[in-house]
Amino acid sequence: MKDFNNEHFLLQTATAERLYHEHAAKMPIIDYHCHLNPEYIARDHVFDNLSKVWLEGDHYKWRAMRTNGVEERFCTGKDTSDWEKFEKWAETVPYTMRNPLYHWTHLELKTAFGVTKLLGPATAREIYDTCSGMLRSPGYSCRGLMLKYRVETVCTTDDPVDSLEHHARCKADGFAVKVLPTWRPDKAMAVESPGGFRAYVEKLSEVSGTRIDTFDDLIAALRARHDFFAAAGCRLSDHGIEEFYAEKYTAKEIATLFNKVYGGTALTPDEVLKFKSAMLVEFAIMDWEKGWTQQFHYGAIRNNNTKMFRLLGPDTGFDSIGEFNTAQAMARFLDTLALQGKLTKTILYNLNPCANEVIATMLGNFQDGTVPGKIQFGSGWWFLDQRDGMEKQLNALSLLGLLSRFVGMLTDSRSFLSYPRHEYFRRTLCNLLGNDVEQGLLPASELPFIGQVVENICYHNAKNYFNF
Amino acid sequence: MKDFNNEHFLLQTATAERLYHEHAAKMPIIDYHCHLNPEYIARDHVFDNLSKVWLEGDHYKWRAMRTNGVEERFCTGKDTSDWEKFEKWAETVPYTMRNPLYHWTHLELKTAFGVTKLLGPATAREIYDTCSGMLRSPGYSCRGLMLKYRVETVCTTDDPVDSLEHHARCKADGFAVKVLPTWRPDKAMAVESPGGFRAYVEKLSEVSGTRIDTFDDLIAALRARHDFFAAAGCRLSDHGIEEFYAEKYTAKEIATLFNKVYGGTALTPDEVLKFKSAMLVEFAIMDWEKGWTQQFHYGAIRNNNTKMFRLLGPDTGFDSIGEFNTAQAMARFLDTLALQGKLTKTILYNLNPCANEVIATMLGNFQDGTVPGKIQFGSGWWFLDQRDGMEKQLNALSLLGLLSRFVGMLTDSRSFLSYPRHEYFRRTLCNLLGNDVEQGLLPASELPFIGQVVENICYHNAKNYFNF
Amino acid sequence: MKDFNNEHFLLQTATAERLYHEHAAKMPIIDYHCHLNPEYIARDHVFDNLSKVWLEGDHYKWRAMRTNGVEERFCTGKDTSDWEKFEKWAETVPYTMRNPLYHWTHLELKTAFGVTKLLGPATAREIYDTCSGMLRSPGYSCRGLMLKYRVETVCTTDDPVDSLEHHARCKADGFAVKVLPTWRPDKAMAVESPGGFRAYVEKLSEVSGTRIDTFDDLIAALRARHDFFAAAGCRLSDHGIEEFYAEKYTAKEIATLFNKVYGGTALTPDEVLKFKSAMLVEFAIMDWEKGWTQQFHYGAIRNNNTKMFRLLGPDTGFDSIGEFNTAQAMARFLDTLALQGKLTKTILYNLNPCANEVIATMLGNFQDGTVPGKIQFGSGWWFLDQRDGMEKQLNALSLLGLLSRFVGMLTDSRSFLSYPRHEYFRRTLCNLLGNDVEQGLLPASELPFIGQVVENICYHNAKNYFNF
Repeated sequence: MKDFNNEHFLLQTATAERLYHEHAAKMPIIDYHCHLNPEYIARDHVFDNLSKVWLEGDHYKWRAMRTNGVEERFCTGKDTSDWEKFEKWAETVPYTMRNPLYHWTHLELKTAFGVTKLLGPATAREIYDTCSGMLRSPGYSCRGLMLKYRVETVCTTDDPVDSLEHHARCKADGFAVKVLPTWRPDKAMAVESPGGFRAYVEKLSEVSGTRIDTFDDLIAALRARHDFFAAAGCRLSDHGIEEFYAEKYTAKEIATLFNKVYGGTALTPDEVLKFKSAMLVEFAIMDWEKGWTQQFHYGAIRNNNTKMFRLLGPDTGFDSIGEFNTAQAMARFLDTLALQGKLTKTILYNLNPCANEVIATMLGNFQDGTVPGKIQFGSGWWFLDQRDGMEKQLNALSLLGLLSRFVGMLTDSRSFLSYPRHEYFRRTLCNLLGNDVEQGLLPASELPFIGQVVENICYHNAKNYFNF
Repeated sequence: MKDFNNEHFLLQTATAERLYHEHAAKMPIIDYHCHLNPEYIARDHVFDNLSKVWLEGDHYKWRAMRTNGVEERFCTGKDTSDWEKFEKWAETVPYTMRNPLYHWTHLELKTAFGVTKLLGPATAREIYDTCSGMLRSPGYSCRGLMLKYRVETVCTTDDPVDSLEHHARCKADGFAVKVLPTWRPDKAMAVESPGGFRAYVEKLSEVSGTRIDTFDDLIAALRARHDFFAAAGCRLSDHGIEEFYAEKYTAKEIATLFNKVYGGTALTPDEVLKFKSAMLVEFAIMDWEKGWTQQFHYGAIRNNNTKMFRLLGPDTGFDSIGEFNTAQAMARFLDTLALQGKLTKTILYNLNPCANEVIATMLGNFQDGTVPGKIQFGSGWWFLDQRDGMEKQLNALSLLGLLSRFVGMLTDSRSFLSYPRHEYFRRTLCNLLGNDVEQGLLPASELPFIGQVVENICYHNAKNYFNF
Repeated sequence: MKDFNNEHFLLQTATAERLYHEHAAKMPIIDYHCHLNPEYIARDHVFDNLSKVWLEGDHYKWRAMRTNGVEERFCTGKDTSDWEKFEKWAETVPYTMRNPLYHWTHLELKTAFGVTKLLGPATAREIYDTCSGMLRSPGYSCRGLMLKYRVETVCTTDDPVDSLEHHARCKADGFAVKVLPTWRPDKAMAVESPGGFRAYVEKLSEVSGTRIDTFDDLIAALRARHDFFAAAGCRLSDHGIEEFYAEKYTAKEIATLFNKVYGGTALTPDEVLKFKSAMLVEFAIMDWEKGWTQQFHYGAIRNNNTKMFRLLGPDTGFDSIGEFNTAQAMARFLDTLALQGKLTKTILYNLNPCANEVIATMLGNFQDGTVPGKIQFGSGWWFLDQRDGMEKQLNALSLLGLLSRFVGMLTDSRSFLSYPRHEYFRRTLCNLLGNDVEQGLLPASELPFIGQVVENICYHNAKNYFNF
């Protein structure tokens, strides 16, 4: 019987242990996609207590608490104290056994605070006090935590109209961690709401110093911001989409649609798809011009609970996995760019594991020999960011593509305590490879090469691929 | 090498054995969804022979026999004897290795009759005679078998027009097992066939003593029967649907559609969807008013073989797993109710395992903290009611929700010999948890708690959730 | 730690070893579906070097090389030598670890050439020279390789207009391996392009000696060729389709559609579907008349990269797994035939593993007791022809149908070095069964029967099912 959460956690064989401890563990972290608040990094925010760093904004934990029968006011309420919320969370933790929250919680307690006790009602107070005290001490600020976890580069997620002042400050301060922006222009194609779209375009006009009267003006303004992001060190874009949009359109149609929606008239659903199809291509070309990597996160259905959306807004735990047949549109979109010779490096993230094999085989359609692993299958995203989801992604990629060229893990997290997810991923990766070697599926004689592959997936592949 | 079907069957580790034997095995059975014939329980039916209890109405076995090259007359024919049918089944059994039928068959022989020989041509006669003799002896009647398997509560599946006389008789007799009805109103929304619908509504009118001229009358009549079911101890409803129906409609439209179809005019496919959308909401509100749990079984495509349907009717082994994209409709349906504050406890059962993650994440959208595990992911249904299907359901639920709050197993069966499926489920559950503990994925120190969780999933969660 | 690729490769237990070595290994190969060039067999082609036999036309390897950053000219280019291409492939091989190419490569080197060194940059030259020398020696011609691998029967894939002269020559020569044609009439329903369709029909008219003016003429001409194929020993048909086509149509409509498209007018998408629906039924009836087996390979999206399609044509590595909801159409198609009593033996191959359970349960809808395993779930196809894909297919078939009646493996390959895929399949099969026995999921007492089942799946089932 193996101990829980010890140094060999998730490692089922001696070879897995060796691969992890000799190769994976030592690599710095490149977190090339996350949702950290750059302001917190810029001003090196200090968290008052464990509740603040753990429970604020963490919809994973809220969902678990609601499922466990905890009232909403202990999740997102304003009439409950940090401690009261934490207490309810601690009561919930034992009920999360087999959920990644159970592993994440104890891995974070161990690696950040050295706490190896299990969190539950009996230990809640002690753990809360201990960790809260540490959080207020030197070395546990936002920057402190990033350094503690040996983070080398993080890419936040930013709107084109963002000033990027916080990124600039991190750089100006000489903060050892590279804090780079990511271009996430979802709002620039959110034409479902003419009012919201107009407001956004006006803001963009102002920020970019570009008068916007036409679709071409819109693109010019966005390109100006794209240049600005590039100057700030941006190397990636990211798009949150339900499905891929790859309708046929003409430049003239899109010009007309822009005028229509900008003038305040709602577009039909077909027109919305056309407009988004055009925008995806425009964005993709900008990224190709600069040698950036474009990322696509698709397949969520969001804000499913109207009552709670009205109370709490988006990203509060009411999203789930959708069912879409988007393979053909994905292929058409990528083909449009490949045909123009303008397909840049691309990472595809799916939310429904049923699409694992679809994506893993889509990659090969557009690999062109210019960059190893040019088209990437993103690591298990959101709900799939757990051992089973990671294993399925790693296996599909291995069987249908080249695992060895994978750019590896990212946290996608809003929390400064999420870096152990890299450790979790690395252990999972080493475990799969270790099992293969022990079972004779990979040759033991090649362990030095396999160790190198591990280091590449954990660090070098990303560094080279993104040009960090 | 482990022995087949011994006391440690399906249990791969010592911890799994301990969890099963010390915790799971002792719990009584709550079979909250089945298709037992209540008349058989009421009159305590005695089966003549093993063929009668095993082969009559068992489309799982018929499918296996047909696949094995057995002529239809040995499955459903009237010109073959019970023994001849059994003989063909016995010839088929060895060819079912790796199919759940192989495990179920031997588990049923062992637990009901103490027979540990393998069924096959060489043992068929002996096993048939032995078991048939026992079936005619005291203790092997329908009630006898239920008591033998320590069943505490069963919920049958009943039409709103049913008299529930058999349930009443079981209660009047003081039968130790609670035999409760379940509200299954599929026919009340089967408007595809105006003639069949009208006949059903007329029957409903008669049974409920309610004149039905309008849609409101229909609902009033159904509500009267709903009250009647409640008085008989009903705590659950159940709906068999292809997909979720969540079209927009107005009360006026539905009133008109009712008049149209009741008047004998066929509805268009869109009108059918609208009508069903309205009915699902009406039923859901009735259930919410009474604090019942609503169940949805969706995703089958039925009666695929027209020739055999004409010969044998429905539920004879010609149904299979469908491919539907229904996540968004499912969300809209649940959202409609949540927005009105009328979403009752709900269990979602899928037939295509591709929807496991869709459902497991859908739950969280509507958990509201009022009841632990208020929205449930139903245990592996029909074709998925086997070790692999159960494991996938348990793993998806674990990783994306809270396994600890799961209400557990049900047989969904027409057979009085199906109770070992609870044992099969419990062994599978304990095996997963045992493996996790042995591998250090769960802490061994928490075994007492894990044992409690096992007992909860096997018994207490259902008892509390359904208020049995 | 087990050795890589030794005699116990893929066999995790002693029981698996025993099943493989005592039962599976000795069975001859029936390769009932492949894409070998019959001309090569007829003239007993000799390969100049390892590059010729391995890299020409192998889009699996090209995809891996492109993914690894290898320029196109080393994949399909005409300005690079065979050795240069091989060198790039050898550089890529270590990066294919965990991909089936890594296993296939070393299994082929070992079983064909006795080479047990790992292929990589350091061994490339030596392996190339050794194997190329052997390829030019007696016993390594196309026929030599087939005999070496103990192939008993192969079924190539042929167009109805094919002369089948090469098959005739193989037979006339008294070649010990039966080389049979397969009827693959995809072009006869490719009405998307009126011009291409007309050219094909004219060719068919010429070859069949049948004047074609009407749809009935078309069917008559095809039936003449069907007879011709039958005379040449054909026992199977094969259809490559995106989805199943099962639209309603009348004979009159189809007659009109034929005239329209044959007259040069493009059909609408709905008309194309109708026409294909009719053709599938016509073909199915011909197969039923002759007692053939019909095969359906569905679910690919093809030629996704327009730029490369223009350069290289089809089947060059730019296809991938599609997302289709085709269960209902599949059921309607099979039902149409079953209702007429004209459903012949059928094998269904899916490309998206999400359809495994759909197909495995579809089978049962149409098993009619006349032939054991009459409707078959085809072995893991194309991207799924690897250990994980095979295991998922075997498990789905086992759990939802009868594994014991499975007709087993086929290569679907264009390469004369692909026969070890049968070994790969057999080891995977024996491993699953061995694990089950060792874990007590199957009774060890039944090992003789299980060994017989292994032999059946590897050989006898196919021999009996296809009447070879």
